[in-house]
Amino acid sequence: MGNMKNWLETRSKEISSQVVDINKKELTDEGISGFGTKLRVTDIIKNLEAGLFPTIYEKDLDNKEFINIYVRKRLNMAAMELNGIIREVFINMCDKSKKDENCDKCTKKADEATIKFMESIPKVREILSTDIVAAYNGDPAAMSIEEILLSYPYLEAITIQRLAHELFLLEVPLIPRIMTEYAHARTGIDIHPGAKIGKYFFIDHATGVVIGETCVIGDNVKLYQGVTLGAKSFELDDDGNPVKGVKRHPNIEDNVIIYSGATILGGTTTVGEGSIIGGSVWLTTSVPKNSRVYNNTPDNLIEVAK
Amino acid sequence: MGNMKNWLETRSKEISSQVVDINKKELTDEGISGFGTKLRVTDIIKNLEAGLFPTIYEKDLDNKEFINIYVRKRLNMAAMELNGIIREVFINMCDKSKKDENCDKCTKKADEATIKFMESIPKVREILSTDIVAAYNGDPAAMSIEEILLSYPYLEAITIQRLAHELFLLEVPLIPRIMTEYAHARTGIDIHPGAKIGKYFFIDHATGVVIGETCVIGDNVKLYQGVTLGAKSFELDDDGNPVKGVKRHPNIEDNVIIYSGATILGGTTTVGEGSIIGGSVWLTTSVPKNSRVYNNTPDNLIEVAK
Amino acid sequence: MGNMKNWLETRSKEISSQVVDINKKELTDEGISGFGTKLRVTDIIKNLEAGLFPTIYEKDLDNKEFINIYVRKRLNMAAMELNGIIREVFINMCDKSKKDENCDKCTKKADEATIKFMESIPKVREILSTDIVAAYNGDPAAMSIEEILLSYPYLEAITIQRLAHELFLLEVPLIPRIMTEYAHARTGIDIHPGAKIGKYFFIDHATGVVIGETCVIGDNVKLYQGVTLGAKSFELDDDGNPVKGVKRHPNIEDNVIIYSGATILGGTTTVGEGSIIGGSVWLTTSVPKNSRVYNNTPDNLIEVAK
Repeated sequence: MGNMKNWLETRSKEISSQVVDINKKELTDEGISGFGTKLRVTDIIKNLEAGLFPTIYEKDLDNKEFINIYVRKRLNMAAMELNGIIREVFINMCDKSKKDENCDKCTKKADEATIKFMESIPKVREILSTDIVAAYNGDPAAMSIEEILLSYPYLEAITIQRLAHELFLLEVPLIPRIMTEYAHARTGIDIHPGAKIGKYFFIDHATGVVIGETCVIGDNVKLYQGVTLGAKSFELDDDGNPVKGVKRHPNIEDNVIIYSGATILGGTTTVGEGSIIGGSVWLTTSVPKNSRVYNNTPDNLIEVAK
Repeated sequence: MGNMKNWLETRSKEISSQVVDINKKELTDEGISGFGTKLRVTDIIKNLEAGLFPTIYEKDLDNKEFINIYVRKRLNMAAMELNGIIREVFINMCDKSKKDENCDKCTKKADEATIKFMESIPKVREILSTDIVAAYNGDPAAMSIEEILLSYPYLEAITIQRLAHELFLLEVPLIPRIMTEYAHARTGIDIHPGAKIGKYFFIDHATGVVIGETCVIGDNVKLYQGVTLGAKSFELDDDGNPVKGVKRHPNIEDNVIIYSGATILGGTTTVGEGSIIGGSVWLTTSVPKNSRVYNNTPDNLIEVAK
Repeated sequence: MGNMKNWLETRSKEISSQVVDINKKELTDEGISGFGTKLRVTDIIKNLEAGLFPTIYEKDLDNKEFINIYVRKRLNMAAMELNGIIREVFINMCDKSKKDENCDKCTKKADEATIKFMESIPKVREILSTDIVAAYNGDPAAMSIEEILLSYPYLEAITIQRLAHELFLLEVPLIPRIMTEYAHARTGIDIHPGAKIGKYFFIDHATGVVIGETCVIGDNVKLYQGVTLGAKSFELDDDGNPVKGVKRHPNIEDNVIIYSGATILGGTTTVGEGSIIGGSVWLTTSVPKNSRVYNNTPDNLIEVAK
């Protein structure tokens, strides 16, 4: 085996070429996954965050009198970037054999999706206001609305999920999921863009929460860290591949509290209105409204060492 | 529905204005949450980290002979930034109706808090040295002190919490919590700045640990991932809002080990000195010193498929 | 107590000097932990990621025709940086009393380790292709390979662990652990570089998973969030320090599924081929192949409030 200089000048060419070949085999067509998609989506998220919460995320703003101008600039930037990337995704899906960069139908569809998304923003922001109220009322440690705005990771996660959910409803592929996984990385909260979540939602402490694609959550629901709203199992098709798109995750009705580490599974499982699910409970069947569900485990075994 | 250009030139103004209105409703007074607070606190944290652990965080330092100069520069930068932001917070609290940017009382109070905080730094750094020893002694996978300094996320979390706790004791609002949530985002460890934590503290693997505001933890305590030291429930006042500031989280005495996923709840719950709490235990009452607490669950149900 | 200006000009010198003294006591010899190691390792990771997955991480690439050139550039940069840092680590270990910056033996050893590592990259990348297939087949929510490449945090964690594992096998200290803790911070998945993991590995949702140093995992294994593959306890030597390097973590054979929150502990615990371990199971003994292990807890206690 030679020295480093030698390796860099000769072998590295062969190794690189092997790596490129594996990459090419993996993505059989030239997908959207093209260069920089992830970075562009991150940029869109940052513009949306600064547009929706200028007092938290807008670092360029010195003078509050110009707040309208800054918000508009951010939303316009997000709209333009999003429009470009949605158009690419649609062109990509439109006709895999000959991607027409000038496809008018795709451009029109992308414009329509982008505009519908942008028009939904005030509604999303209004709902986020209810989430902030829910955090304040639901956490004795929260000393002010400002503290929640400036420090609660949950707020970033739910902001991004509610935005991603609007794109999901518009049947924009790929981008919503990149958005929620950005939030997951930053907060430890994994909410699929497909999950439908009502107003006044709050997750205290947040880390480790998983909310699956086909969950339906009512208004005024509070979760604690480590809660899973997941799938029980999933169907395989005749080729042994998972069947996609089936309702696999539970329904949580209004005014439910779910304590830390509880796991609720299955697409036909419904937690009735006003119920409380205790910490670490494992639940795979429906419970009626106003249920109180606790682990029926025997007492801990306590012994005292001498 | 028009095209993108049209939307950007016309509708976006209306949408932005709606978003601004919602923001204005949310923060009824002009709070500290003003522009860039989060970024400024992040900057303070980075200067404090580089000051406390120059060999890990000081990227500008080429020559170890200048280490004193670099540390002092970092600490002075942190002190100045912190002083500025504490002053703003105090002015903000001082008289909401007419914020006097030149309030002498506020300036004096801010100077006092900043100086007391900066004077506490060698003590904090000394305690962090004990935490590093605890990590080395408590983890067979730790091969050197350097490995702990350079790679253990727990160390960043406890560094930031111990610093935030000093500000919390000085009754500086908002900033301590932004600090610990910065650590939470980076490490998955959520320790409230109010928690009082003794020397030689270690959290192995770390992700998902939650330690509440009014916890009191003794010396030489070791936790594993996913441990919650939380609140059992909380009081509501006559308006149905949570009563803030009540003792809600447990006391953990010296030399206690708590294994992964255990949950210990309640302000009057005390885990006596030298106790061991097993993995996934759910504990809401006190146990005497030297207790061994394990789940008394029956054996797992094991069957073998044919 | 004086004012801020006074503190900055006088006391800060004393405080800084105290902090430096504590740092010096902590690292008794001049370790590798020197300035910027962490940043350099981060840089190496970024170059390796862009080399292995150019379509995801290569932000500079505009034209896919140049993909080979970009990949080679990234791999060469990683190789050079890694070579430099490995050489430092080896010099550091070689003779603590007089570190010879020109030690030929160390240079040769570093070249050898670096080249062996770089030569392993196509093999690692090939295995990562199997992991991507496992994610697609194992998650009904995954709509395309692109979605996995662009959004699954698990993919970043396993990429970094598989690379770090190669360095671990080459007995390069410190750097592998910094690498996996970088992944841990970004994904909430804590896999020690020592863990030996087979092909077609997948972790769904990912946050809170802990896989210990001496785990051995077969092919086609699927984990869910919050799973711990950990140590039962560990031996102390005569001085009360943990004995390092003992087999402490379980063996998971081929085709095993472990559901969320399960905990499997101990170096002699083996989960036999084809077994399924249910959610939240606590397992500290071996189970034969094709076992189905579920919690035998009584039903939840459900009551309905009036």
